[in-house]
Amino acid sequence: MTARYDTITLLSDFGLGDESVGVVHSVIGELAPGARVIDLSHGIPPFDVRAGALALVRALPYLVPGVLLASVDPGGGPRDRSIAVEVGDGAGVFLGPDNGLLAPAVALVGGAGRAVEITTSEYRLESPGSTFLARDVLAPAAAHLTLGTDLSELGPAVDPAGLVPALVPIPRVEEEGVVAEVLWVDHFGNAQLNVDVDAIAHLGDPVVARFGDSSRTLSVVTAYDGLPEGRVGLVVDAHGMLSVSAARRSAAGELGLSVGDEVTLSEAE
Amino acid sequence: MTARYDTITLLSDFGLGDESVGVVHSVIGELAPGARVIDLSHGIPPFDVRAGALALVRALPYLVPGVLLASVDPGGGPRDRSIAVEVGDGAGVFLGPDNGLLAPAVALVGGAGRAVEITTSEYRLESPGSTFLARDVLAPAAAHLTLGTDLSELGPAVDPAGLVPALVPIPRVEEEGVVAEVLWVDHFGNAQLNVDVDAIAHLGDPVVARFGDSSRTLSVVTAYDGLPEGRVGLVVDAHGMLSVSAARRSAAGELGLSVGDEVTLSEAE
Amino acid sequence: MTARYDTITLLSDFGLGDESVGVVHSVIGELAPGARVIDLSHGIPPFDVRAGALALVRALPYLVPGVLLASVDPGGGPRDRSIAVEVGDGAGVFLGPDNGLLAPAVALVGGAGRAVEITTSEYRLESPGSTFLARDVLAPAAAHLTLGTDLSELGPAVDPAGLVPALVPIPRVEEEGVVAEVLWVDHFGNAQLNVDVDAIAHLGDPVVARFGDSSRTLSVVTAYDGLPEGRVGLVVDAHGMLSVSAARRSAAGELGLSVGDEVTLSEAE
Repeated sequence: MTARYDTITLLSDFGLGDESVGVVHSVIGELAPGARVIDLSHGIPPFDVRAGALALVRALPYLVPGVLLASVDPGGGPRDRSIAVEVGDGAGVFLGPDNGLLAPAVALVGGAGRAVEITTSEYRLESPGSTFLARDVLAPAAAHLTLGTDLSELGPAVDPAGLVPALVPIPRVEEEGVVAEVLWVDHFGNAQLNVDVDAIAHLGDPVVARFGDSSRTLSVVTAYDGLPEGRVGLVVDAHGMLSVSAARRSAAGELGLSVGDEVTLSEAE
Repeated sequence: MTARYDTITLLSDFGLGDESVGVVHSVIGELAPGARVIDLSHGIPPFDVRAGALALVRALPYLVPGVLLASVDPGGGPRDRSIAVEVGDGAGVFLGPDNGLLAPAVALVGGAGRAVEITTSEYRLESPGSTFLARDVLAPAAAHLTLGTDLSELGPAVDPAGLVPALVPIPRVEEEGVVAEVLWVDHFGNAQLNVDVDAIAHLGDPVVARFGDSSRTLSVVTAYDGLPEGRVGLVVDAHGMLSVSAARRSAAGELGLSVGDEVTLSEAE
Repeated sequence: MTARYDTITLLSDFGLGDESVGVVHSVIGELAPGARVIDLSHGIPPFDVRAGALALVRALPYLVPGVLLASVDPGGGPRDRSIAVEVGDGAGVFLGPDNGLLAPAVALVGGAGRAVEITTSEYRLESPGSTFLARDVLAPAAAHLTLGTDLSELGPAVDPAGLVPALVPIPRVEEEGVVAEVLWVDHFGNAQLNVDVDAIAHLGDPVVARFGDSSRTLSVVTAYDGLPEGRVGLVVDAHGMLSVSAARRSAAGELGLSVGDEVTLSEAE
């Protein structure tokens, strides 16, 4: 049997403060020494399934095809079943908990093909105590996939339609304007909204952004260097979404914006 | 000469805030381009030899056999001699300072075989100033081991019995119960104790845990999903030790538990 | 065409909290699966070009020759042009923004050979919005260099003499002594100054260090283990520079020293 996958991409909420990520690398390295492993991120906030799902969606267009192992588990344990979902007519397999973490990424690449629950004990490690899903279940399964094991050998088929769906917020168009939400605040303090530039094209430029008790009139620019020095604006960011941004400093910090905050965009008077 | 080792696993207290870890990778990459390097963790708290030793012990069952390079140096400099210790009848070599960091891991794999102090200048880099042990001594030695250099070429043999021993706390059985200690608080706030479930089997279930001025009655469960939602309990964790844990939140944060705290476990009335 | 470079070393201010670094790895991994990628550091403080430049200079003697991709961009966007600079008679190519980040490293290896502005659309990724320089421009260019693409194909030649120069502070010799500056505070709290031991040899030993409203009399030692336990001193650090250091604790924390602080060194009475 020829291996179809040679790359395993990892995403988790484990942080890099302890050896969890290194142990996952070691398990893969021992079982599948020839696999290439790419760390997408391990900095997802603990238990934050939505943040993990959004990071996967942002990164997906750039990932090396192959196996994606994602672990953000609100239970911190084996509460959720572990699943493997084939995508892109077998171009890739996504592994993770069945808690919605994978769902938006699966949808983005055209939906699930085959799906299984990972249960085959031959492809799991035995734990001295509780199961550490990424170490004991997901990493061995990912390694075996790169060695040529077929998805169907990992466990019983499950109906993809029965997998836990994603919870990604949709902007609402209301009388007072487009009610958006902060999806993500990046390392530089850009606050990404869940709207693209087309969704507010009818409001003109500039637009008024209201959040909490504040409001700001913001210009819409298509590149960061279109922002006037010292000014906050709305930038079409590198993912094609609108971000509240400032030149050379943190817009989110300055305006007090956090993930989940509502921002209502409306026409300037 | 054929290389016996192809993998180098790294652990340190360097953090990832500056280029130290990258420089160690670069030194290895230049000398031994074919070696595989796995970062176990660089998040050990600065100077915390015990935390580093415990992380090694937790990870050891999962590591790829080969060379282990560990650097947690309370002196921040060359105060300690650098040693290389053969383990598992030559299945692996552990490199690090002779300060107890390696000792529990060496014991766990059956004790030291040959040991040397790394002194051979041919296998060291010259520093423009003080010696940076990981960069100048340990990384080149690790690289040369993967190239087939025998341990004995790294420097003079030392008596393994004379190496600095580990300081790992042992639980005490006293009149008021089993006096345990918090070994580790993981990224999710689980507080691992230095006792396994057998050590408290005679106390029944639930048990009373006393720490500081507080006490809690805790159920003992063998998996995280055995914890009632919203309750703190004692879980047999993924390393087989008892952890004070809570579902989906930080038990250590909630109870104010830190590494080194004593927790006395006794029979519930 | 034979590839001249097989290693890509990365440095950025992206942090590891999100997927930015992983996406850069993925882009390289997809275009140049055979390239080895070494993370030098992604912990440069956001927008801090000087800190990035200094980290490159400290690491440079240890790097694997090849391609160096550095991204610290005060604009957070495409304000600066992206350049590729050949160094060491083609032994390496440095890629990054033209904002001084690369300049000290270029100077350290003997100055720039050929230089180009990276503009060729064939070697760039198209963004759905703003350009993310590291992902869309620098990573593809680095990958193509390892595949054998010549520097000249990346874009039009630019005059190396016209590149933005570095701003690295030079110590001043004044009547009251040698006025140094803290270049870097490392993970362990050592505060590296921009002077080496020769620059203060005429002051004798110990020397008086004045900073803010404080002053300390400090011994000069050539290795960390020359520091008396519990004392702060001046150590010739692992880069050959003088560092204000303490044994087993943070000298910078204890003395309140931060990057950019002036420290005046003078003869003890």
